[in-house]
This record gives sequence, C-alpha cells and structure tokens, in this order.
Amino acid sequence: MAKPSGIVTLLTDFGTRDPYVGVMKGVVLGVLPTARLVDLGHDIAAQSVVEANFALHGAYPYFPAGTVHVVVVDPGVGSDRRILCVRAHDQTFLAPDNGVLTGIIGPGAAIRSVAEKRLFRCADVSRTFHGRDIFAPVAARLAAGLDPDEVGPAVSDPILLARPLPMHTDAGGIAGEIIHIDAFGNLISNVRECDVLQLEPNRRFVVFRGQKIGYPAESYAQSEKGRPLAILDSFGYLEIAVNRGSALEHFNASLGDRLAIGAEPTA
Amino acid sequence: MAKPSGIVTLLTDFGTRDPYVGVMKGVVLGVLPTARLVDLGHDIAAQSVVEANFALHGAYPYFPAGTVHVVVVDPGVGSDRRILCVRAHDQTFLAPDNGVLTGIIGPGAAIRSVAEKRLFRCADVSRTFHGRDIFAPVAARLAAGLDPDEVGPAVSDPILLARPLPMHTDAGGIAGEIIHIDAFGNLISNVRECDVLQLEPNRRFVVFRGQKIGYPAESYAQSEKGRPLAILDSFGYLEIAVNRGSALEHFNASLGDRLAIGAEPTA
Amino acid sequence: MAKPSGIVTLLTDFGTRDPYVGVMKGVVLGVLPTARLVDLGHDIAAQSVVEANFALHGAYPYFPAGTVHVVVVDPGVGSDRRILCVRAHDQTFLAPDNGVLTGIIGPGAAIRSVAEKRLFRCADVSRTFHGRDIFAPVAARLAAGLDPDEVGPAVSDPILLARPLPMHTDAGGIAGEIIHIDAFGNLISNVRECDVLQLEPNRRFVVFRGQKIGYPAESYAQSEKGRPLAILDSFGYLEIAVNRGSALEHFNASLGDRLAIGAEPTA
Repeated sequence: MAKPSGIVTLLTDFGTRDPYVGVMKGVVLGVLPTARLVDLGHDIAAQSVVEANFALHGAYPYFPAGTVHVVVVDPGVGSDRRILCVRAHDQTFLAPDNGVLTGIIGPGAAIRSVAEKRLFRCADVSRTFHGRDIFAPVAARLAAGLDPDEVGPAVSDPILLARPLPMHTDAGGIAGEIIHIDAFGNLISNVRECDVLQLEPNRRFVVFRGQKIGYPAESYAQSEKGRPLAILDSFGYLEIAVNRGSALEHFNASLGDRLAIGAEPTA
Repeated sequence: MAKPSGIVTLLTDFGTRDPYVGVMKGVVLGVLPTARLVDLGHDIAAQSVVEANFALHGAYPYFPAGTVHVVVVDPGVGSDRRILCVRAHDQTFLAPDNGVLTGIIGPGAAIRSVAEKRLFRCADVSRTFHGRDIFAPVAARLAAGLDPDEVGPAVSDPILLARPLPMHTDAGGIAGEIIHIDAFGNLISNVRECDVLQLEPNRRFVVFRGQKIGYPAESYAQSEKGRPLAILDSFGYLEIAVNRGSALEHFNASLGDRLAIGAEPTA
Repeated sequence: MAKPSGIVTLLTDFGTRDPYVGVMKGVVLGVLPTARLVDLGHDIAAQSVVEANFALHGAYPYFPAGTVHVVVVDPGVGSDRRILCVRAHDQTFLAPDNGVLTGIIGPGAAIRSVAEKRLFRCADVSRTFHGRDIFAPVAARLAAGLDPDEVGPAVSDPILLARPLPMHTDAGGIAGEIIHIDAFGNLISNVRECDVLQLEPNRRFVVFRGQKIGYPAESYAQSEKGRPLAILDSFGYLEIAVNRGSALEHFNASLGDRLAIGAEPTA
C-alpha cells in the first residue's frame, strides 16, 4: 500500500456561503496540522450523487499515490447508510455508500465500512453532519498513516450506480445518451472511442436532435464558430460541442438525451 | 497564548471572478511564503455582515490553536470604522469592527484596534481595499509570530450585533425566528436544544407557517421524501428541513420568519 | 532569475462542478508533490480572455518572486495557437497565446513557446484539454526548478489585446469607457488617476449616463447610501460605485459604456 501523501481532497455539495466546508477543513487540520487540503469543488448540485461521481471519477486518476479523497454528497446522512473507506488505485476514498464511488470500486478494491467510533470526532456524533464528525477526522487519521483495515469491517456489497451503456442498433449503428453537461455547455455522452472504432469508416457520424454531425472533429477551434461538432473528449468519450458557444444552449439539451452514431436513430 | 499554526483562513464577499482574492493571497504569501492559506469562502452575499458572522462563528471552533482568521466583509471600508484584532479561544481574528465577530468576542477576549502603520503594506494605503493594504499583511505577520498586543491600542467597545433571542410566550411555548437559510434550503432558527428541553414532553412540536411539525426528527432520511421535518442541527439549533428537498422552496421562506414551539403562535 | 517559490496559482474558466480543476491539481501534485497550489479563481466567464486578463493583471504583482502562474482560458485549444511561457517581474506565466498576458508582457519579458514534448504529460496529448496535458505538468516542472529557456523556442510576436485608452476631447475633458464590472457592481473605467490630475481642478467631475458626479469621493462610506460616487479604485483607475449598493444595477450599465471627465460628453 502506498505511503500517505498528506494530501486530502474535498468534494461536496455544500456550496461556499455556509460554515460547512470551513468546519471540515478545520477538523482535518485539527487532527493533522500538516495535512495539505485540496478543494476538488463544493458546487456539486445538492444531493447529486451522479454529478459527484462524474467529478471524482474524472479527477482521481491524476492524483499521487497515497492521496485521501473525501466525498460528502450524502442525502442519506443520519440513516443507516454505511460510510465506505475504499483502497483502490493506490489511493484511499471516503464516501457514503450511495454509489458515488462507482467506477472506482473494481476488482482490486479493498472496501471497509467506517465503524470504529474511536476514530470519530471526540464529541457526540450528530445525525446531520457526518462530514464534520466522521469523514473529516477519519480522513485526517488516514492521511496521517492509519491503516484503512482498522476503520471497520470488510464490505462485499457496496452500492453501485447503474451506468447506461451504449447499445448496438438493428440499423448497424450505436445508440447512446448524454451523461454529463459541463460548465461550457459541452454534452458528454456514454459512447467511448473504442465503440466508434468498431464501426465502418463511412459510419463515423453522429445524429443528435435530427442533425447529422461529422465525427471526429479535430478540435473545437477547427470548427466554424457557433456550429455544432462531435469530438473525442479528453476522457475518451464522444462529446457534442459548439465552437466558442454552448451546445447546451444551441440544442436546449438535457441529461439523458439520446444520440445515434453511424445510422439514423430508430424510433 | 498559542504558537501560530501558520494557517491563515480567508472569508470574504469578493466572489471569484475579480482579482481581489488573488491579491490578498499574494500579499500574505509575499510576507510569509510558508503561510498555509485556507479558503473559508468568498461567496458571502455582498456586504452581508450577518451571513459572514454565521459562517465564521460556525467554522472557527474546529480550527487548531494559533490559526489566524481574516474576514473582509467591509461595507465601511475607507470610513473611520476600526479594524479589530481579537485573541479569543486560542486563535486570532482580524475583521472590521462591524459586528462580524459577534459571538466570538466574549469575556476572555483581548481586543485591539489595528493602527500600527509599520505593519501595513509598504505603499500608500487605499481607501477602498484594506484587504490588500492592511488585513493581508497584518495577518501574515501575526501568522509569523507577531504579538497581537503590538498591532494597536486596546478596545473596550467593539460593535456587536443584536442577536434575536427566542422568547417564552404566554401560551407556555417558545417563539423564535429563522436566522439563516443554508445552500440546501434548510431553515436554521435561533432556538437551541436547551430551550426546547425546558418544555413539557407533550409540547415538543413546532408550528411554522400554520403547519404542525413533530420535533425532533431523528434524521433527514427518516422522514418521508419531500415532507417537512424539524431537527436538531449540527450546531445545536432547531432547524426546519425537507428530506431530499428544500424547505426554503417548500415554504417560500424568508430570513426572520417566525416559528413557535410547544404552542400555537399568539397573534 | 528568482528561485522557484513552489507556489503554483491557477486561474481558469472551468467552474467548480466538473472534474477539470481537480484534474489539473492532481497532475501538478503528481509531478511535484510539494507544490503549493493557490486558486486565483475558476469562475471567469467561459472563454473570456479579457476577464481573465483583468484578474491576473490585478493579482500577480502581489505574489512572491518565483511564483508560477497558470492561466487556462483557452478558446483556441487544439488549434495551432501557441502556449507561452513568459518570465517577467521575477515570476513565470504559462498561458495560451491569446492576449491573456497583455500588460504583463513588456520590455523586459523573456517569452518562449512551450514545445518540448518531453515536458508534457506521459500520454497522448488531447486536442481538448491542454490544461491537463501541457499546462499542469510544465507548471509543476517550472515550480520544481526547470529553466524556462528549456520549454521551447523564443517568441517575438505574442498576441496582445488592444486596450482602449482614454482620449482628450475637444471640449477639454477626457473620454473613457467601462472596462470591468466587479462582483459588487462597481464600474471600473480605463481612466487613470494621472489622466485626471492633468485637468484643471474645476474639471474634476465625471459625467456618466447624463449624471454629473463629483470626483474623487474619499471613500464608499462617505457617500450617501444608494447614491453614485466616483472614486479612485485600489488599482489606480477611476471607478463609479454606489455606497452599499450596485452601480451596475443603479445605471443598468454594460461593459464599454462611455464616461466623460471634466466636460459634458460630445455627441
């Protein structure tokens, strides 16, 4: 197992007007004054496990071994939902057992339920703010070298999100859907490059909202300003974008919108 | 007095599109390159001393001894309002003398007015940006070990906000009000747990906007989805919330809205 | 040249709901685990080179020598636009060659085009996310001591933004325009204090939207609440503000709005 790096990342839906983020930072630094806090972001839509999963899943692979990632997007706080401590990819993840670690938990992962009360904050544990009372102190102790095996019993049945997979269609193409819309209004689909490469070269086009778009564009900038394009995004997914504009606004798009690759969509 | 921890927290209403936050960080690091900056948040509503007070008051108790907290929510910048340096709870606070330290300033606090110009930035002090010219350099010097007694003369009459207290009613209940609405739309009142515990067990209910709500709910999650609940929040106050929803939207609530505990409100 | 300070600042238009900021932080820390990351801000309006320029230009002078500033506001990503590495003012700047370093690049600056692929991330470089693949790893190497001369060939023709300058008018006054509107709704013009000082004392007034405003106000606070004032801002520019209010809302103002100093505007 990797030695702790002292880095503790925080990803929450707390926003930045309330005391909650500050409280968690204070608790981490109170336990481990040398901890190096990194904000992944606090503007996840309230209680959106899917959005938090996307943000964490995209970012974690780039962090050094021994990093501790803390996710508090936790609509079930205070219920009997478990808190998971997962060792995977040489890093450690603390998160509610609500699917937010989908795609991170895999065959090699060691999963524990955080249960050892001696690791919690030295005070009554609230029913509403486990970020302060459990996540922050346990994260700090893990960053200080605590063995993850000591946080509680092993877990074999973590909750995982059903991730919609692209499908082959009778018409010989692929049907996919929009799974994320980023701050630029780019529409990220669940179709991976390898899916498209299985199609004949003459089928490398996208149909979205009745509009046929060539694939792949070389870059945002090589398309005409304001015109839709389909591109391989930086995480390996097919993305619909508008050069110097917003595909979200251009198409008035929504999460879950369908797209077709290589053939007109079947009704 | 606690040794400085090297931690400097920043809480402002500057937002994050303008240069102001970056400027303050640069000045702190210019004076003390080893300072460890922690963003408490920069999205306080413009000039809202009450909101900043709530955020700081909630977060500071969790920080290690020797932390320097800097608050720049300062509608009176450039007037003759004082800047306070307060030692309390083994930490140091720099803030305008506008009430933002209410609840932090108490019997044991040592209060000074920041007046020693040799501690300011080596340049003319502007009338519009004391965050850069006074707060940041003085904070860095305090974090580097400057004795707070050296910043200026003692102050005995800091400005404190009037905090609305819950009151007992003729009907044998308690009347309180909403003092904060958080990013989830939770409505936080000024009624503390100890206030409610003084009531007979059969009076442990809340009336808000004509609706009777049992108290206390065990957790957000144990209530029905979309239904209002009253709960003890993580700072010890009675809070009205909606499981997986927003009480702000559900009730179209506002700061200052009244609630009654243990008896119908008297008109 | 200054020794690296280990400080790496980040200024982007990525927002804080997507993985992008986290990815860049991870890559920097992966290359240089001791790097000290400082968020200048991630809420620059999408693809607004002008706004990013304003934020960086305002903040960089306050940072210690040896700081590495990274700006990723990059509508041309994936095109043949260059990435610049600029040494100036004893600091290092990494940014797309799109004008975002206007006002920082000056006579003493040493400018290189980032081209040495061995300094990039050890993976295929995407066409959509150079923040991850080029900016972050090169910034980390510079912060670790890499000589900026090694990143690529010298550049003599960086792109610079045309900055609108105030002009003298036939009526004997000065004509300027609003170049930035901050989060408080303050309207910052391109007129500098030295411009105004060239006018006769009886011409020290501002005309904006037909309204005559005295100049300079001593401070926001010394003006009547809700009333417009003209003040010297903390960066040396003439600013129109409203005490405890928003000049943006008061005037329904826009970027580029004209103002006149010392004489009624000529039509």
